[in-house]
Amino acid sequence: MREVAIIGAGSTKFGELWGQSFRALGLEAGMKAMASADLSGEEIDAVYIGNMSSRFIAQQHIDALVADYTGMAGRHIASTSIEAGGASGGVAFRQGVMAVASGMHDVVIVGGAEKMTDLDDDSVNEVLNGTTDADWEAGMGLSLTSLYAMIARRMIHDGIATREEIAACAYNSHFHGQFNKDAQFRKEIKLDTVLKAGPTAEPLTMFDGAPISDGASAVILCPLEDAKKYTDAYVKVAATAQASDSLALFQRKSITEFEATAVAAQQAYEMAGITAQDIKVAEVHDDYTVGGVMALQDLGLYKKGEAGKAFLDGSTKFDAGKIAINTSGGLKAKGYPIGAAGVSQIVELYAQLTNSANDRQVKDAKYGLAQSVGGTGSAVTVSILEAM
Amino acid sequence: MREVAIIGAGSTKFGELWGQSFRALGLEAGMKAMASADLSGEEIDAVYIGNMSSRFIAQQHIDALVADYTGMAGRHIASTSIEAGGASGGVAFRQGVMAVASGMHDVVIVGGAEKMTDLDDDSVNEVLNGTTDADWEAGMGLSLTSLYAMIARRMIHDGIATREEIAACAYNSHFHGQFNKDAQFRKEIKLDTVLKAGPTAEPLTMFDGAPISDGASAVILCPLEDAKKYTDAYVKVAATAQASDSLALFQRKSITEFEATAVAAQQAYEMAGITAQDIKVAEVHDDYTVGGVMALQDLGLYKKGEAGKAFLDGSTKFDAGKIAINTSGGLKAKGYPIGAAGVSQIVELYAQLTNSANDRQVKDAKYGLAQSVGGTGSAVTVSILEAM
Repeated sequence: MREVAIIGAGSTKFGELWGQSFRALGLEAGMKAMASADLSGEEIDAVYIGNMSSRFIAQQHIDALVADYTGMAGRHIASTSIEAGGASGGVAFRQGVMAVASGMHDVVIVGGAEKMTDLDDDSVNEVLNGTTDADWEAGMGLSLTSLYAMIARRMIHDGIATREEIAACAYNSHFHGQFNKDAQFRKEIKLDTVLKAGPTAEPLTMFDGAPISDGASAVILCPLEDAKKYTDAYVKVAATAQASDSLALFQRKSITEFEATAVAAQQAYEMAGITAQDIKVAEVHDDYTVGGVMALQDLGLYKKGEAGKAFLDGSTKFDAGKIAINTSGGLKAKGYPIGAAGVSQIVELYAQLTNSANDRQVKDAKYGLAQSVGGTGSAVTVSILEAM
Repeated sequence: MREVAIIGAGSTKFGELWGQSFRALGLEAGMKAMASADLSGEEIDAVYIGNMSSRFIAQQHIDALVADYTGMAGRHIASTSIEAGGASGGVAFRQGVMAVASGMHDVVIVGGAEKMTDLDDDSVNEVLNGTTDADWEAGMGLSLTSLYAMIARRMIHDGIATREEIAACAYNSHFHGQFNKDAQFRKEIKLDTVLKAGPTAEPLTMFDGAPISDGASAVILCPLEDAKKYTDAYVKVAATAQASDSLALFQRKSITEFEATAVAAQQAYEMAGITAQDIKVAEVHDDYTVGGVMALQDLGLYKKGEAGKAFLDGSTKFDAGKIAINTSGGLKAKGYPIGAAGVSQIVELYAQLTNSANDRQVKDAKYGLAQSVGGTGSAVTVSILEAM
């Protein structure tokens, strides 16, 4: 397998971007990534896109749309679109890595984009709930939020995390969001902001869930041996793994862990030849706070029962000298344009591992990990990047 | 790049399958493919799915759905879903090949499935028209059918094909459909059946377009060096290429050729180390008759102006001793469950190249080619299989 490097990365601002179309967002992220790699569009020979739902913009065939509006179609570049719910960006990244690793393509751009605010909230929620089991969950009136609320209740009941510890995941993301100029929310919050916000599905409140967002992110891949030709600021893709689980939550042995995360993490650590102890910075999928808490445990970064405490005592902050979590602001504060999420995690790790994360730079990180989740853990990708 | 083999293939019947769900269809095709490879589900370590629109079944996250309902989720197998309009199956196949070629996975199942008949025709057409440019085509009232009708008019005007020659593409597909027990339509038709059917968008009639169908297809991939462990009936994936073009038809230099087909074909021939003259059997994307005519020309199998004549004079029949085209019945007669289409082409070529195509067996074919098209040629895959 040919080794793969990331040689550039870029994101748009995330937020309610009324003035920018899906097309404009994708283009902006792509241009930033190419500029960061000191690369022209002419040098790219394949495009991968994570995008959750074309319903948001009444357009199928996102692969062709992106090729077209980035000018790649003029050279008939292969363009491929991936949908895997919240993991769309993570899966797209992994496919891009395979394209280079296989030798099929040399310079690949992986983008993720979503334009969600053009639909009303009910329609957005209908699409989001489509990541649950249409027959056995959504069809019965369950929403993604209510499923995560059940997980939270069970975590609290079993003593795995307290309500305050779960809320602290949102605090951690908002704390970091203030340092990220592209984040949707850039204000530090108090724990009470989460606890006393309006309820969505109890015990969760408005501040336990990531926002509805527009935005796009992109990274550029090439064979590791060619990376130096383009830039000195490159990182190695040490591993990228993917695992699945039942679509419906009730079919799991336990709802307080995502086995797909554990399996993908195990494969990724093996592939990278490291253990969880080597990870110094991680971007985890905190679309719901409780998901962030589970992630740290399922990834083996903390023991079961310890992750919530880490959020609460500040161990997860970029400058705490432990494992820095969601230094980008996470999905909660950075924003959650679904297809972009998994790619935006890679953008953050690229910044951290090339020492360009400015005010939120983690010190001496050799390995960074990104975890991207679809539905209630029915698809998970775990990728590990290595500083060079 | 590790060489890749196909060691098994299977399809459901295509048609209006009111009694079978999306899940049941996918499972049936997968089981048939595994049985054909003499393989158990335990041996599969990744799944790829071509699926055009989850709207047909009110379910996002098709990757997880398929992993779940095939039992793969129990072992947390990576599952990835691809949407590329009509090329969804073709692109999924190519991604599956890359997964094996890269060394990331060993035994991969590539499936394609669509359940279209649960929606009313207007809704189906709305989704199909979503493969055109939402802003500049569908948004202006253009449908996919009317775009292909414009192509047909131009072909006739420019003397590239007569109306009868275009219609002969449908005749050829129906001729072959009678030999395929899984085909939606199994009756030979007359040229007049096409010419005198009700108009859809002039000059095209009902018989110029592929039907709305349910169905699923699947193939099993593994490293070429391991193929013999499973079966003697295996074929080599000699090449798989993919190209893009503008989403909107009006942006092309010419609307009587799909450059994406020409580019992908050129890359595929180079990768396989052959020329168009080596192809003896081909499955081309005849979602509209005029698309089938263009395909033969753009693939270099016939010169511009000659393809329609080949359909009309019977050169394209399986036993004509020339290049056998759409021996499965093509999308026109076999049926067109969109995501399954590109994979079903590979299923047919696998049968032809392993001498198991029964009543429609092409003699002495060493190389077979499959072309899968999204929208009006905005995404095209060309794959070449080699008999072993």
